[in-house]
Amino acid sequence: MTRQIDLAYAAELDAHDPLAHFREHFIISDPDLIYMDGNSLGRLPRATVTLAEDLIQQQWGERLIRNWNEGWFTAPERVGAKIAHLIGAQPDEVIVADSTSVNLFKLVVAALRIQHGRSHILTDNLNFPSDLYILQGAIDLLDKQHRLDILLSPDGIHGPVAELQTRLDSQTALLTLSHTVFKSGYIYDMPSITSAAHAVGALVLWDLSHSVGSVPVDLHAAYVDLAIGCTYKYLNGGPGAPAFLYIRRDLQDLLSNPIDGWMGQRDLFNFELEYRPTAGLRHFLTGTPPIVSLALIEPGVDLLLEAGLDNLRAKSLRQSEYLINLWETFLEPLGFTLNTPRDPRHRGSHVSLGHAEGLRIDLALIHEMNVLPDFRPPDTIRLGIAPIYTSFRDLHTTVMHLQKIVAERLYEKYSKEPPIVT
Amino acid sequence: MTRQIDLAYAAELDAHDPLAHFREHFIISDPDLIYMDGNSLGRLPRATVTLAEDLIQQQWGERLIRNWNEGWFTAPERVGAKIAHLIGAQPDEVIVADSTSVNLFKLVVAALRIQHGRSHILTDNLNFPSDLYILQGAIDLLDKQHRLDILLSPDGIHGPVAELQTRLDSQTALLTLSHTVFKSGYIYDMPSITSAAHAVGALVLWDLSHSVGSVPVDLHAAYVDLAIGCTYKYLNGGPGAPAFLYIRRDLQDLLSNPIDGWMGQRDLFNFELEYRPTAGLRHFLTGTPPIVSLALIEPGVDLLLEAGLDNLRAKSLRQSEYLINLWETFLEPLGFTLNTPRDPRHRGSHVSLGHAEGLRIDLALIHEMNVLPDFRPPDTIRLGIAPIYTSFRDLHTTVMHLQKIVAERLYEKYSKEPPIVT
Repeated sequence: MTRQIDLAYAAELDAHDPLAHFREHFIISDPDLIYMDGNSLGRLPRATVTLAEDLIQQQWGERLIRNWNEGWFTAPERVGAKIAHLIGAQPDEVIVADSTSVNLFKLVVAALRIQHGRSHILTDNLNFPSDLYILQGAIDLLDKQHRLDILLSPDGIHGPVAELQTRLDSQTALLTLSHTVFKSGYIYDMPSITSAAHAVGALVLWDLSHSVGSVPVDLHAAYVDLAIGCTYKYLNGGPGAPAFLYIRRDLQDLLSNPIDGWMGQRDLFNFELEYRPTAGLRHFLTGTPPIVSLALIEPGVDLLLEAGLDNLRAKSLRQSEYLINLWETFLEPLGFTLNTPRDPRHRGSHVSLGHAEGLRIDLALIHEMNVLPDFRPPDTIRLGIAPIYTSFRDLHTTVMHLQKIVAERLYEKYSKEPPIVT
Repeated sequence: MTRQIDLAYAAELDAHDPLAHFREHFIISDPDLIYMDGNSLGRLPRATVTLAEDLIQQQWGERLIRNWNEGWFTAPERVGAKIAHLIGAQPDEVIVADSTSVNLFKLVVAALRIQHGRSHILTDNLNFPSDLYILQGAIDLLDKQHRLDILLSPDGIHGPVAELQTRLDSQTALLTLSHTVFKSGYIYDMPSITSAAHAVGALVLWDLSHSVGSVPVDLHAAYVDLAIGCTYKYLNGGPGAPAFLYIRRDLQDLLSNPIDGWMGQRDLFNFELEYRPTAGLRHFLTGTPPIVSLALIEPGVDLLLEAGLDNLRAKSLRQSEYLINLWETFLEPLGFTLNTPRDPRHRGSHVSLGHAEGLRIDLALIHEMNVLPDFRPPDTIRLGIAPIYTSFRDLHTTVMHLQKIVAERLYEKYSKEPPIVT
């Protein structure tokens, strides 16, 4: 065990971590639990508890319907504007609405409608599967000319970048990818891919679900057209909290929302029988938003803005580097593979480790060691680093537990059973 | 002032109201506020406050990702099954998901897809306007053969029943109406309309938003195909709480969800690249639901189930009858019109009063009298009766205030300004 890797070193890194105090802004009810799943459901900020009380008891209980004019009505834009700061967008280019999937559906249909004469959607098999379902569903609704092309990753870890470049052509209506890939944590080079797609006249839509709040994204620098993302992972917005969507300002009035609802209507209290979209991004809202879940997103975003995304990224990279060093020393000899890019430019904020006994090791980690990772079939354990509250010590302890589970074959008492939902 | 109508009579009715004690199950932070807008945003149940604390602090804060397997994952069906009891459906025929508008979109597209060779959607101008937007939006997505026919109410109060019967024909793919109309409170005769539509081979979709929880609905007795509805009005589910959808069991596997997401996938943790819908209603889910907003629906539904919908309807009718009597005595002479059916079989749980100075009277009622009604342009004040907490005294006091506002011209200090969001 070298100086660069042992528990004392982890403790030293924690002691010098300028973001360490942010952990105190979260509820840590079980100090012995090591939570390595902030990439799936972020922890609860303390400020969210206070806000929830106010939302429910004062805003709903006391102000009742009046509170629509006292903050609820503008919540989609207000929270969206804060998220915009995390992804290099203007405040009026991001709005919170519905789920990631519903937002993807709206944007894909809208994009295809203005891409006359182009029939292909290009994506890859590293994209989140439900994005593929939504894409196929949208195509099935439109005329039969459209086609979904799913490029294959060369190794299941890295994006098929070379093939993407060659497959972009005058038939490509839309290129859509997960910016950070959910399984391997691979990060696409957003500016170069976006630029290549634009060069052939394609629109580009990035799913930022596994990037936002942990990986710097600069939508404007890359001149990205469209994006969607999730708020319950690194944003710490709460279980199933509504998603966000981004439309670059110059496209906002060109695109029409296929699920055109009340919240996007101009003069919505005139109750006109015909839909007339309001200007700007708001016409991509549909129904009345789930206010409690939506409003609770804000405190988590505030914490990230306060910490600063560059600081968070710097810590996240130090942590994933440390975790990879630990893997190399302790886990690789035991049959664990590293299923995450080593190149930090292409590495998000989680590290995926494969093992032939991955599922049973995962279960042992949860039930024997009080560590919560998540599992992706067939064999991948994902260790999520949420730099705003994950400590270096968390990483060291997790790896020591993994080593022990395999070295002492503690996983053998577990049979295959449905994995935890993550 | 007759014995049948004065404040003492209201007090007597309250004293003998077998549901009166349910008011204590709600947070009433300002006892002087008269809340006549439970048809727009229901009050906060006390049990919801307790549940919210548990949801946020224990379920999210402490259990974290594990809680997906400890109640969150099944919440859409669990809450849906309870709502099913209020609308005459089987427990596995109702699920909570998304917003009313998104659910309408899914069901309309799904219905049109199985109605081959039929191109008309039939509705009326009493339907909630955003339902019309969604219908038109869905049609615009499909081939250009489809057409939306919006029948006109003869008087703006009653449904165009006679015309509906004649317009149903072999071209009708779908008939969709609001069961209780948002403006006038008119209730359609669900069994006879549904049966007439079925006779020509049309499918029927009812929007139950202004019925559920206040008006008995028996979807099975009427053999209704599809329904949607809202949870934040009479169900007291909280601002923008997610909506529900109903699909009769025999149709569930025939219909396909056009926004086919992760939550409806069979074996969702296999992360397959192709969508395979799970059996039953769950494949009409799309993305991860907003758990906090969704789970908070349950206590309000529990209260309604405990009170019993027949009891609630009986009280609601006594209350609207009383309110109409008050109107006749005190308000009709001052120029108020009754914009709600007098026939109790066709009257929902709100009473709409028109007045040439409606908007300014509404503002005076809110700001001078601490009564919260809502307003629908051009001239309609809606008084919502939520029988689970509205008292007869509330009704009497509201009418006395309305009388005073007009008799003493207290509304004259108000100019036209945007009405409260309701």
